[in-house]
Amino acid sequence: MENIEKVVDFINVQRDRYVDELKQYLAIPSVSALPQHQADVRRCAEWTAEQMRKIGLQNVKLMETPGNPIVYGDWLGAAGAKTILFYGHYDVQPVDPIDLWESPPFDATVRDGELYARGAADDKGQVFMHFKAIEAHLKQSGKLPVNMKIILEGEEEVGSANLDNFVKSHKDELAADVVVISDSPMFARGVPSICYGLRGLVYTQIDLRGSNTDLHSGSFGGAVANPGFVLAQMIAQMKDRGGHIKIPGFYDDVVPLTQEERDAWAKLPFSEKQYRKDFGVPKLQGETGYTTLERTWARPTLEVNGLLSGFTGEGAKTVLPAVAMAKISMRLVPNQDPDKIASLFEDYVKKLAPKTVELKFTRMHGGKPWMTSFDNPFVQAASRAIEKGFNQTPVLTREGGSIPVVSTFQEVLGLPSVLFGVGLPDENAHAPNEKLDVGNFHGGIISAAYFYDELSRVAP
Amino acid sequence: MENIEKVVDFINVQRDRYVDELKQYLAIPSVSALPQHQADVRRCAEWTAEQMRKIGLQNVKLMETPGNPIVYGDWLGAAGAKTILFYGHYDVQPVDPIDLWESPPFDATVRDGELYARGAADDKGQVFMHFKAIEAHLKQSGKLPVNMKIILEGEEEVGSANLDNFVKSHKDELAADVVVISDSPMFARGVPSICYGLRGLVYTQIDLRGSNTDLHSGSFGGAVANPGFVLAQMIAQMKDRGGHIKIPGFYDDVVPLTQEERDAWAKLPFSEKQYRKDFGVPKLQGETGYTTLERTWARPTLEVNGLLSGFTGEGAKTVLPAVAMAKISMRLVPNQDPDKIASLFEDYVKKLAPKTVELKFTRMHGGKPWMTSFDNPFVQAASRAIEKGFNQTPVLTREGGSIPVVSTFQEVLGLPSVLFGVGLPDENAHAPNEKLDVGNFHGGIISAAYFYDELSRVAP
Repeated sequence: MENIEKVVDFINVQRDRYVDELKQYLAIPSVSALPQHQADVRRCAEWTAEQMRKIGLQNVKLMETPGNPIVYGDWLGAAGAKTILFYGHYDVQPVDPIDLWESPPFDATVRDGELYARGAADDKGQVFMHFKAIEAHLKQSGKLPVNMKIILEGEEEVGSANLDNFVKSHKDELAADVVVISDSPMFARGVPSICYGLRGLVYTQIDLRGSNTDLHSGSFGGAVANPGFVLAQMIAQMKDRGGHIKIPGFYDDVVPLTQEERDAWAKLPFSEKQYRKDFGVPKLQGETGYTTLERTWARPTLEVNGLLSGFTGEGAKTVLPAVAMAKISMRLVPNQDPDKIASLFEDYVKKLAPKTVELKFTRMHGGKPWMTSFDNPFVQAASRAIEKGFNQTPVLTREGGSIPVVSTFQEVLGLPSVLFGVGLPDENAHAPNEKLDVGNFHGGIISAAYFYDELSRVAP
Repeated sequence: MENIEKVVDFINVQRDRYVDELKQYLAIPSVSALPQHQADVRRCAEWTAEQMRKIGLQNVKLMETPGNPIVYGDWLGAAGAKTILFYGHYDVQPVDPIDLWESPPFDATVRDGELYARGAADDKGQVFMHFKAIEAHLKQSGKLPVNMKIILEGEEEVGSANLDNFVKSHKDELAADVVVISDSPMFARGVPSICYGLRGLVYTQIDLRGSNTDLHSGSFGGAVANPGFVLAQMIAQMKDRGGHIKIPGFYDDVVPLTQEERDAWAKLPFSEKQYRKDFGVPKLQGETGYTTLERTWARPTLEVNGLLSGFTGEGAKTVLPAVAMAKISMRLVPNQDPDKIASLFEDYVKKLAPKTVELKFTRMHGGKPWMTSFDNPFVQAASRAIEKGFNQTPVLTREGGSIPVVSTFQEVLGLPSVLFGVGLPDENAHAPNEKLDVGNFHGGIISAAYFYDELSRVAP
């Protein structure tokens, strides 16, 4: 029996224990966006470190940053072999609207083969998958086939403000051959995939003020600007009827889709009807001339993430609001630059704002878009591993979401990234009822174990 | 010494006691819009009834409705004299945003001659003014110069849903010669006024849904409609750049301003600069071709009263919201009909909504606009009374707010209304730091006492 087969056998018999352990991890409400969870975030970092020690990693430590700590651990005993830098995050999204959850977000529950909890897919479940693959190798053979460095951050859901500096100031310690990240969904249930492109992000907030206090809409309505209305007017001017973003210069650096990509994606098993049904969408929409996959994978977008003005409770309050707020983000594609786009957007917003309101524009965070090549040997190794873990050749896809650190690893460390995620498109990563398919979790552990093995055979 | 002089002397020595008693009234958080204050609303009705008994009114009772009770009381001993139907309300607006209050909204506080509390001006303070005028007459002469019927409702701030039916089903009991209401501000500090016109109201809510759950804005942005963005697009199409409302047929029944009115209003002591400064307004705006007073008193308007979608907390959440909500109201002028306008608006909103979202349109409440004539003998009597109470001839104005019951009294009971209010334009009626000028409160009590006296001399 080959070594890797013993490892896989071990994984197969541990299946239930893995789910139980993951539940403990998911019980910690490490919501980085909310100050009241700050202690939980730290507790989660400590739990993560403890788990890393338990599975046999070495030099495990919390590395402080101006924000939440980064958990580091390594195993460097595979002399002459490749070194993986594994990146993930232990923080999670907020849970509101809480009343839409069918089971408590921090009390992980299995229903119909899915594990429901905040962080199940994004990203604790997928981090844990690698922990268990490492554990299986170390338990079965006392060693890994590759060297491994792991960094897990606690600020991914709030923009990874401190990660860039961390990577820059620990360049030597983080030296490796390839970055591995499991923080993306597979293409569809039963269609394992490797992602070769991500969109970037610019996230902003617009605050308007029309008066020093809320006013009576009867006494003042018609004479004093209504910031809620002005905000709506401004937002409406950000995209045209064809879904085209109207910020001057916005599309200047967009790399067009190749015919090859368009043809390949057209062959993917994708049903618009099912997609609409899954998410209760009355009718799809988007930029004219592009398919749904093209719109989300390869075209930039501008979205309203939040709106607030005036009275929003039950009933009627005849108020002319003093202020209005919008959170607006843009997803970017290669080669758009977040700083440049943020500046173009800020200029445009300033032009849109009438003199009847005071405008405050806030840049919140951003990340560069990213793309790699299909024939990269690490991508090929991952493809073989996934094929063994899921008994199916993975498809090559792009993703609409952003993992800004992928660009950082490229730029600062000169490293390619391999993204293999085992979430599902309906995993509700940033919504109520986040979930992870238990079968995919298991297949992911086996694939990860094979992946380390495959990497040991990649030519120098 | 004439009887009325004794009454006024009595009022002058009671000045401080009146403020203390009003504070008790203002301590009851009778917020009709919020279910959690339902018991407070009833307690306030009971307190009101107790006060009415104390000052010498008769037949005081709580009259139940499907909603909050109406407090009734009368004094009908002035055989052959006119009968006043006094209308007011004991419910108040919500207090949020609570953190903008400089003193607790239900712990009335005098600062610089102003009494700060929710309901100080709208409408408890102005109702109390009449209570004290009645008390003074009854204490000094054992009688009132006129007959008096009082109805105070507890649902004015949520649309007076049950008042119309109440008035219709108690037509005979409410028979009178004139309706008196004190629920409007005077034109300016030191410029007492009588209001001869009010705007009407249509209040609606628009709810959009684009998916069955909040989605990840990276994975779905660009392909699934963003209800926050769609809502902004819809709202932006409701008014043009010149402030003209774009609902087809909206202006069909609008009575144009007369040249007389425009000339009279142009002479009023009104400083746009001071107005802007008072309310911290960067720049005034509104319908092209009209002054600020004309825009708020005699032209209809459409306002966003509330907006809510997606993530509105601190920080960044990359969510594609499932739903978006707007509260939108229109102020109407003679002879616009609220039902007709609500239908026109509903039709227009349905046309504006794309098929990518589900639309729910809710009509919340409405009220007809109202206007009376300058030379009405009751208006003239009120004018003489206010002149005596404030040592100044009142100016004749219109108001941008709505008191829908004024139309009800006109239509159901055939009664004219006299509106004399002693609030101030910066009273913050529906905003934090609502206040009533203590001097105006006192002048209002004296004016009310004179008014009853003047009414006793109006020809039959």
